[in-house]
Amino acid sequence: MTRRLADLPTPALVIDSGALDRNIARMAEALPGDRLRPHVKAHKCTGLARRQADAGHYGFTCATIRECEGMAAAGLGTDLLLANEVLDARRLGALVAGGARVTLAVDSPETIEAAVAGGVREVVIDVNVGLPRCGCPPEDAGHLADLARNRGLNVRGTMGYEGHLMIVDDRVSQRRKVERAIEVLLAAHADVGGEIVSSGGTGTYDIHPLTTEVQAGSYALMDTAYARMHLPFRQACTILGTIIHADPRRAVADVGLKALGMDHGNPSIESADVLFCSDEHVTFVPHVGVATVGDRVHVVPAHIDPTMALHEAVWLVRGNEILDRWPIDLRGW
Amino acid sequence: MTRRLADLPTPALVIDSGALDRNIARMAEALPGDRLRPHVKAHKCTGLARRQADAGHYGFTCATIRECEGMAAAGLGTDLLLANEVLDARRLGALVAGGARVTLAVDSPETIEAAVAGGVREVVIDVNVGLPRCGCPPEDAGHLADLARNRGLNVRGTMGYEGHLMIVDDRVSQRRKVERAIEVLLAAHADVGGEIVSSGGTGTYDIHPLTTEVQAGSYALMDTAYARMHLPFRQACTILGTIIHADPRRAVADVGLKALGMDHGNPSIESADVLFCSDEHVTFVPHVGVATVGDRVHVVPAHIDPTMALHEAVWLVRGNEILDRWPIDLRGW
Repeated sequence: MTRRLADLPTPALVIDSGALDRNIARMAEALPGDRLRPHVKAHKCTGLARRQADAGHYGFTCATIRECEGMAAAGLGTDLLLANEVLDARRLGALVAGGARVTLAVDSPETIEAAVAGGVREVVIDVNVGLPRCGCPPEDAGHLADLARNRGLNVRGTMGYEGHLMIVDDRVSQRRKVERAIEVLLAAHADVGGEIVSSGGTGTYDIHPLTTEVQAGSYALMDTAYARMHLPFRQACTILGTIIHADPRRAVADVGLKALGMDHGNPSIESADVLFCSDEHVTFVPHVGVATVGDRVHVVPAHIDPTMALHEAVWLVRGNEILDRWPIDLRGW
Repeated sequence: MTRRLADLPTPALVIDSGALDRNIARMAEALPGDRLRPHVKAHKCTGLARRQADAGHYGFTCATIRECEGMAAAGLGTDLLLANEVLDARRLGALVAGGARVTLAVDSPETIEAAVAGGVREVVIDVNVGLPRCGCPPEDAGHLADLARNRGLNVRGTMGYEGHLMIVDDRVSQRRKVERAIEVLLAAHADVGGEIVSSGGTGTYDIHPLTTEVQAGSYALMDTAYARMHLPFRQACTILGTIIHADPRRAVADVGLKALGMDHGNPSIESADVLFCSDEHVTFVPHVGVATVGDRVHVVPAHIDPTMALHEAVWLVRGNEILDRWPIDLRGW
């Protein structure tokens, strides 16, 4: 294995080991043990999930069936919540039959039937708390819980994701809105019962005193979108590139939009203005001087989750030293 | 293997076989044989590249070293052009030593030295024709060709990619601008020499009478960005999803931004308005009626190239019948 950062072929996804450790420790202090159910969609990497488990979080949140399968295969299937609706739950049923604990979100009679048909035994009722996506109307939650129990399912509680409130500049207004969303969720939970009230994310992790657990994921690696919220987590993940072209007006590195989640816009480069990304290039203007062909540059993604999904592996580094290579083994569906 | 489209787990990348065949045939008619050097970055799939080779195109364009390696491994390495600069060409040199023909773009003394050091023997001079990215100033092309020849390299000619002119609504103005860009390239070529003048893409494939070859790739599968140019190529690739939530105001399918290149914006769904994408969801409003949970939906990506890079494989289908499964085997770097 390559031992030095400087020898890595580029583009290369790299994690600063110190920053990762600090982010994980800081979150474990704020939300210890089962108060946090880390969302693996943010990194899709069992190597990183194991670090979160080592910090005391044994339950995990997943967004896809493949993520559940990979976590179970890695021995991290103690308590997996698939916080998403599926219409074919057979692969989840196979995991349960194999000894993993998998709890599935349901928000309709159809998704309840899919859970039963697939062999899943435990569910949470997914409640819409304002994000225009999945989740039942709050007033239907109790009825769906009854339906699920009548079909033999163990209803462990409720979840409601306030994704529309995750990245907000005004934290006072954010807190007020999140409180209202959680009021809605708790009212639904009163109709549903069960021990779980699951909600939240990195942008709201510190304003969830009333839920039983928070589903944050991005806190471990961070990105530029979350960075502007001044959370106590540091940028831990960048894409290392090589400058392949430089002239007095611009520089170009080999980190393009196939190496970057682009839904939140362009990435950032320290002391430079990013002009645009192409498939395999980022064109940028250094604030001072002219770049040098062959030099390395760190590119910071705007959105970490889809960035991870574009890479086969991530390199864990300390300074110029490579400590480990973690496959991004939860990709796909 | 699953034999019916309806049985595929979702999200699933699918190609309409008829549309693909027609697109490939139509392009082969317009630019037969070596007049087209299909760009594999658009699909990253040797299964599809083999169809292009069957249509008479034996030379291919690549954007990454991995694409060159995969094409050579698939027996499609007769004449590969890596239309991009690299600072470490050793893996390309290994391909050449193994019998593949690999020609590398160079635009600076440093990239010429990298070609020599890596064991690459053939290059083209990459000329900037207006896109603010790589490519030498046109007036430097002859000097760089001399330098390359002095270093023992075979200079096969020039390339210049007018990427800034690829998607333009006014085709009359586009043609005028492309002609000016090609004038610049041909002037540089007069200083460089060699048999290749390589340029163009899907958006300009039919206005390149003066170059020796066109590097188009997206024409085979298409996307919504190219669709608005009214080219004679049809949408051949979609992501099949399942509707996992529906209510009177909206529907949600399991095709999110991790299944879609998002740099050109949201995808499209026929007879519906797409509201937004999340990691694993697309939220949309059908024009008529209420969607049904469990129904399937085809999502059309805005940008095909990065969409392909997010999937492990693509399913070739005819109606509801699955004809083949092609791995997206040129991903990564």
